[in-house]
Amino acid sequence: MTGIIISIGNELLIGDTVNTNASWLGKFLVDQGIEVIRIHTISDDLSIVRDTINESLEAADIVISTGGLGPTHDDVTKKAVAMLFNAEMTVHKPTLGFIKKIFEKRNIPFSKSNYEQAEVPDNAEVLFNKQGTAPGLWFEERDSLLAVLPGVPYEMKELVNHKVKPKLEAITGGNEKRYSRYLLTSGVGESTLSDNVVGNLEPFLNDNLSVAYLPSPQGTRIRISGYGHSEEEVEEHMKPVIDHILEKASYLIVGEGKELTLGEALGNLLREKKLTLAIAESCTGGQIADSVTNIPGSSDYFLGGMVTYSNKAKVQLLDVSENDLERYGAVSKQVALQMARAAASSFGADIGISTTGIAGPGGSTEEKPVGTVWVGFWSKDDYFAVKALFTNDRLINKERSSAVALEIIRRKILGYEKLPYDLKPQYTDA
Amino acid sequence: MTGIIISIGNELLIGDTVNTNASWLGKFLVDQGIEVIRIHTISDDLSIVRDTINESLEAADIVISTGGLGPTHDDVTKKAVAMLFNAEMTVHKPTLGFIKKIFEKRNIPFSKSNYEQAEVPDNAEVLFNKQGTAPGLWFEERDSLLAVLPGVPYEMKELVNHKVKPKLEAITGGNEKRYSRYLLTSGVGESTLSDNVVGNLEPFLNDNLSVAYLPSPQGTRIRISGYGHSEEEVEEHMKPVIDHILEKASYLIVGEGKELTLGEALGNLLREKKLTLAIAESCTGGQIADSVTNIPGSSDYFLGGMVTYSNKAKVQLLDVSENDLERYGAVSKQVALQMARAAASSFGADIGISTTGIAGPGGSTEEKPVGTVWVGFWSKDDYFAVKALFTNDRLINKERSSAVALEIIRRKILGYEKLPYDLKPQYTDA
Repeated sequence: MTGIIISIGNELLIGDTVNTNASWLGKFLVDQGIEVIRIHTISDDLSIVRDTINESLEAADIVISTGGLGPTHDDVTKKAVAMLFNAEMTVHKPTLGFIKKIFEKRNIPFSKSNYEQAEVPDNAEVLFNKQGTAPGLWFEERDSLLAVLPGVPYEMKELVNHKVKPKLEAITGGNEKRYSRYLLTSGVGESTLSDNVVGNLEPFLNDNLSVAYLPSPQGTRIRISGYGHSEEEVEEHMKPVIDHILEKASYLIVGEGKELTLGEALGNLLREKKLTLAIAESCTGGQIADSVTNIPGSSDYFLGGMVTYSNKAKVQLLDVSENDLERYGAVSKQVALQMARAAASSFGADIGISTTGIAGPGGSTEEKPVGTVWVGFWSKDDYFAVKALFTNDRLINKERSSAVALEIIRRKILGYEKLPYDLKPQYTDA
Repeated sequence: MTGIIISIGNELLIGDTVNTNASWLGKFLVDQGIEVIRIHTISDDLSIVRDTINESLEAADIVISTGGLGPTHDDVTKKAVAMLFNAEMTVHKPTLGFIKKIFEKRNIPFSKSNYEQAEVPDNAEVLFNKQGTAPGLWFEERDSLLAVLPGVPYEMKELVNHKVKPKLEAITGGNEKRYSRYLLTSGVGESTLSDNVVGNLEPFLNDNLSVAYLPSPQGTRIRISGYGHSEEEVEEHMKPVIDHILEKASYLIVGEGKELTLGEALGNLLREKKLTLAIAESCTGGQIADSVTNIPGSSDYFLGGMVTYSNKAKVQLLDVSENDLERYGAVSKQVALQMARAAASSFGADIGISTTGIAGPGGSTEEKPVGTVWVGFWSKDDYFAVKALFTNDRLINKERSSAVALEIIRRKILGYEKLPYDLKPQYTDA
């Protein structure tokens, strides 16, 4: 089966809104085993909307449009569809009642344009939208399927998951679907991972089974996808290649999941091992603590952090030696080490981690260019710092430093020798 | 003039990549005074690419394609264009030399597919790409303009800014362009801002001048856009409506700029007023410090922060009263106040800000549902806390709490009475 997505709205053409709906829908259709052949992004123009839907129904088995269903003058999608199918508009009573209730609750007068929100072409099946005032529409016309959905992302997603998906499944139930698994790696470059660590996967792959490396700020995610009639069937197909990847890349794999973050993976590990964490940040400025506390329940293992941006704060709050600050500078092994240890002892944590570096653009010297970062680690078993050199970009430097810090903790808890990016530990007396 | 954007790549259709290139290019073209009539997103298929470019050249004055220029088998854009124009492939020597140098530097053997990277259709003008190995191409054919660009965003943007833009300007120099100004507001809902504060702008607007409200996590940005032959001309057109907005919404406007953040706006103000800031975060978990330190030079005014996630840390590091913690709970006016004051005194800062709340999903009580947040403020002139109730979503609660905290500081420095969202200050003895 083939699919076409139509994104309707001037805001998409002029760049005010990034078209995240289309990529979400693309993935949804692919997962249903449907090949997406084209995405049209068009303006709120009656004849363009009508003609594009018309052509798309000729070209694909399923067409999904989003946008242009609102109450304002600009929104023409419903009119365009009615015109295309020579349909009359008719009031959908449950929707009208629902909209009226919303307006009553908000104490807003009910106008003609709101009334029109409840009108639908008489050949449509209504996909009731309990998140908003614009109902979704479903058509089975000309041997094709057409879903007409609102453009507000959470309304669209809700309707797809609860209305469109069951309808598609009823029709395509016998078709093969795509099932995917995602392995998040950290502390390794994408090409090193694919070329040197995992290596050639050709012998494992076929039309039915593919592997993709998807880079993200969290690390490279490996996606293994297969087509089949059930998850179990695909799981079995995938097993050899997943086993191979797990064997080759074991210590680089942080965990499994499409949305898994380093903060979440580390959180799971800390909870499992009953360990607590404290953080002292300079160049990352609170970003590590932020990512750790994005995870619900992180108070179970995260005791606290300090953002000691000034030298004075490093001395007063973390007891960093003024002598060392003067002699080695704030961006130094000595300071990173002392910060990590003091973080752990201040909060009474099992593990202390620290960052101190030159995020840029200012503050660099010949010896310490922008992107120079020290990460310190302290636990009762280990105490070291690593030096990394990232980029010229302040925000990327913060992001990479945070990722390396989180990954160092994970590897040390699991007893791995190798540190992220093969960074070398430097000890107090080294 | 009209424009069409063609985004080429299977990764866009299956949802692996969000099409940020298209929205960036949409904005670019609109700013050049070009009306974007359609965006095509298509697969790396030779005849589809050829036909889509062909149709688009018929339909628009300028066509920009991105993607499909890489060295792999999948990349067919160059071949499709050559086929469309019946052109021969010819080697572009400067590009060949450049690519060879890159490979020498990286010590990678030079293969046939790399050689092909330097081949271009003989009717193309090469847009030399110093960021990568795929040159951009420029065609003037069939009374239309065609730019064929790589899909890597920073390569594409560099070529647009430095090669495509001057060419367009040489051709469209006499046309009207769009000029825009952006005013960032904070601490007010979008509909309150547009309906109640700014009010009806119709009398100011015309075909040539428009206003849009663009919501973002930083606050609602007001964009005022006009078309004209020069920035000065448009500035003059815009002046009455901008003056009106500034008058109506003065205290809500954080600053001007398309990319301005609350952290940057506040940073500018702190620097100007020679004030320093310290932060004590509980529910925001480091996010406020992170956003403040995203700004280069923030060490001038940001002294440091603490993330006191546990009660113990609040007591030990911020000297919060154990009695009050027990009596009122960690999410309380008393604790927020003590945290803000202690932040300022620990770091010796002019201003201390704090957050303590229930980000969720756990930790709520009947009295304190998820989304309950106290923000504390301390300066030598003022000392209060506000209570807000946000959403059920942990990440949104962190984001909103951070935004409210930053906006409180800005308003207090500027001496405004009103707090964000009309929150009421509560004092120690209230």
